[in-house]
Parts: sequence; structure tokens; C-alpha cells
Amino acid sequence: MNSTTTKRAVILVSGGLDSATVLAYTQQQGYECFALSFDYGQRHRSELIAAKELSKHFNVADHKTIKLGMGEFGGSALTDSHIDVPTEQSDGIPVTYVPARNTVFLSLALGWAEVLGAKDIFIGVNAVDYSGYPDCRPAFIEAFETLANLATKAGVEQGGFNIHTPLIKLSKAEIIELGTRLNVDYSHTVSCYQADTNGLACGTCESCNIRQEGFKQAGLADPTRYLL
Amino acid sequence: MNSTTTKRAVILVSGGLDSATVLAYTQQQGYECFALSFDYGQRHRSELIAAKELSKHFNVADHKTIKLGMGEFGGSALTDSHIDVPTEQSDGIPVTYVPARNTVFLSLALGWAEVLGAKDIFIGVNAVDYSGYPDCRPAFIEAFETLANLATKAGVEQGGFNIHTPLIKLSKAEIIELGTRLNVDYSHTVSCYQADTNGLACGTCESCNIRQEGFKQAGLADPTRYLL
Repeated sequence: MNSTTTKRAVILVSGGLDSATVLAYTQQQGYECFALSFDYGQRHRSELIAAKELSKHFNVADHKTIKLGMGEFGGSALTDSHIDVPTEQSDGIPVTYVPARNTVFLSLALGWAEVLGAKDIFIGVNAVDYSGYPDCRPAFIEAFETLANLATKAGVEQGGFNIHTPLIKLSKAEIIELGTRLNVDYSHTVSCYQADTNGLACGTCESCNIRQEGFKQAGLADPTRYLL
Repeated sequence: MNSTTTKRAVILVSGGLDSATVLAYTQQQGYECFALSFDYGQRHRSELIAAKELSKHFNVADHKTIKLGMGEFGGSALTDSHIDVPTEQSDGIPVTYVPARNTVFLSLALGWAEVLGAKDIFIGVNAVDYSGYPDCRPAFIEAFETLANLATKAGVEQGGFNIHTPLIKLSKAEIIELGTRLNVDYSHTVSCYQADTNGLACGTCESCNIRQEGFKQAGLADPTRYLL
């Protein structure tokens, strides 16, 4: 661990619109940024390339992409090719929900944070557009924060782990406005659930729809690269 | 998901003495058993072979070994070859502590449990011999159980996730007595922090010491296969 006085933060960076905005926000808050991505068998693997480019663009102190065999469990349209990706927002919890995904991601972020001597973890969850996901709600985040301070040596000895969710109450349009002020180039982010290997978006899935609507409501041009 | 009425359980099986006992116990309780192991860059990789053999011996419904790149974070004697494995029990939290390990393992068990329609997760944590590990304490387990019911679709819709810790208050001798009654063959388990590729134990590390003392106190012959 170096002796810098800059506070360190671990940021979950998927390569999507939300986490790109969180990364820009965390950097603007003056943290030394450590970006964490997961290769978990997701369909939209071009996200990982986007995460790498974003980490480079924002000049993070380190970026790790951790291999995670949770795709073997199946049970989600995002990791199981036998389940179709939906084109419309559903009532209740959607089939694109990956069981316990944010719990797993935050747990690994916690492990890295502890090794780095960081107490601040940033995640781009959003309870507005993704209200169907149980692990995007404030109650989940609060429970994880409690757990983090019980689960770790650093938490037990000093306390103070914080899970930051700067986007949790923002609409997609507000997230885009925030990121635009912070110089995020959204053409380098991938939201599409079934983007091709070059990161080109389908323009028809639920995630593309939410994103398109966000740019429209923000009154900004949509820079997303779509499949023709 | 099949329509069996037998209750399903996910059991964290490391291949060590404790988790072997938990697997035998869960089976004896009448659960359909799903064993979960992790290849996370641990030094004692012969554990993984032991986990496979134990799963076969106890005829589990399925056994998965999930790759998990958390060794990349470093920070523990168990995953970082630059940190020496201790030979004596230390005061406080030992260097063999792997940051957030049980949080990560339980999170992944939760994800698989949800896909399987299981509500019961078994883990061989022990607050007696491993009192130094924060993620082996009852307070940690309770916090994780709360989280599990907030984090998942199954938890939110039906509740009822249970994290079972049948060994949490047992001494090593009591664990060995329990397992012996349940026909666990401890010669096929690996506890040593630096076992060789054939699973032969060093006989000198902290984990070997605790295990040896356990057999001694239980008044049972130690079947562990040691390096000469």
C-alpha cells in the first residue's frame, strides 16, 4: 500500500452508460480510482472492451477484470442463451435479472477494497429504470453496507465501509446529463443486452429502449453506435 | 427445475475437514445436496480434488467448481506466495485471512441456490478455532441471511433463505466426533494450508496443528496423510 493521502475508491465498471457515469463522478470527487470489471459469461462481452477503454480514458490507478464462472449457474437471459432477451420492460422482476449478481460483484469489490486499504465502493445501481431488480434497491445497499463492516478485518477493526450509489434516484435522462457535464463519451459505452462483438447495439432490446428514451428526454443527440 | 419434493440445499465444500462434515450432516438431514467449490488461486489446490472425491462419495445431485479470479487481489498468505503461512495461532486476525472470502463464497452459493429453487445454504464456519476470522462469526452469518432475503427475486417474493452453520459452536474434536458418526473418511480431506499436489499435509502449519489437536482431544487416530 502506498502512503498517498488521496482516498482510494473501488468502482464497479461494467462498460455500460451508468457505470461510466459513476467512474467520471468518482474521479471528479477526488478519489484515486480502482476500476473493477467481471468476465462472468455475459452475452454482451463487448462491455468488457468498453470497460477497459473507459478505465484508460479516466486514467484509473488500476483496472482489473476478474474471471467469474457464475454463468455456469444459468437462470438468466444475460448468461443463458436458451432464454430470449426481452424487447419490452416487464412488470415485476425481469428475466435479465442475474441471480445475486450485485451481491457477488460487491463482495469481490469489498475484498479488493480491503487489500487496497479503501473504504469507499461505488456502484451504478438505479432504482428508477431498474425497479424490478431486487439488488438495485436502497434496502439492499444498506444491508450490504452493514455486512461489509461485519465481514472484514478492516470493517471490524476500523468500521467505515461505504457503498456509494450516486445514481440510485436519478432517471436515465438525469444520469446522461450528469455524465455529459463530466465529459463522458457515451459512444464508448455499451448498454445493449445483445451487442455484437464490436459493441454495436441492437436498438430493440429493453436496455436499448431505456437508453434511447434517456437521450430523448435529456434533449441530447444519441451517440450510440447501432447495427444498421 | 425438477418437481421433486425433497428440499434442496447448496453446501460450500472446500475439501477440508469441516466442510466434509457439513456435507455428511446435510445429507443425513434428508436434503438433496448441491456441492459448490471454488478455484480461487488457493495454495492448497489438492483441496479441490478432495472436494470432488467427497462429492462423489456422498453422491450429491451436482458438484460445481467455479473459477474465481480473486487471487489477483493478493493480501493473504493463502493466495499470495510472498506471504509466509504461519505455524502458530496468532492473536487477532491471522495473515491466512482472505479478504471477504466467505462473503464472496456465500454470494455465489446464493446465486446458485436461487437458480435451483433452494432456500438452504450450508457452510462449515466455526467460531471456536477460527475466532480470529470476522466472517466466521454468528453476527456475520445473520447479516448475510438478512441480505440474502433482500438481494434476490426468490427472497423478495417468498423470503425464507437460511444460512445453516451446524459447526459454528463446535470444537474441532466435536466436529471430528460428529463426522466420524456420519462415516466421513477424514483421510480424504485436506486441511493443510500448504498441502502438496497429492494432498499430503505439512504437519506444521497452524491448520495442521488445530487438526492434530482435534483428533487427539477426540481420542481418535489421526488418519491424515502427512509428508514424511
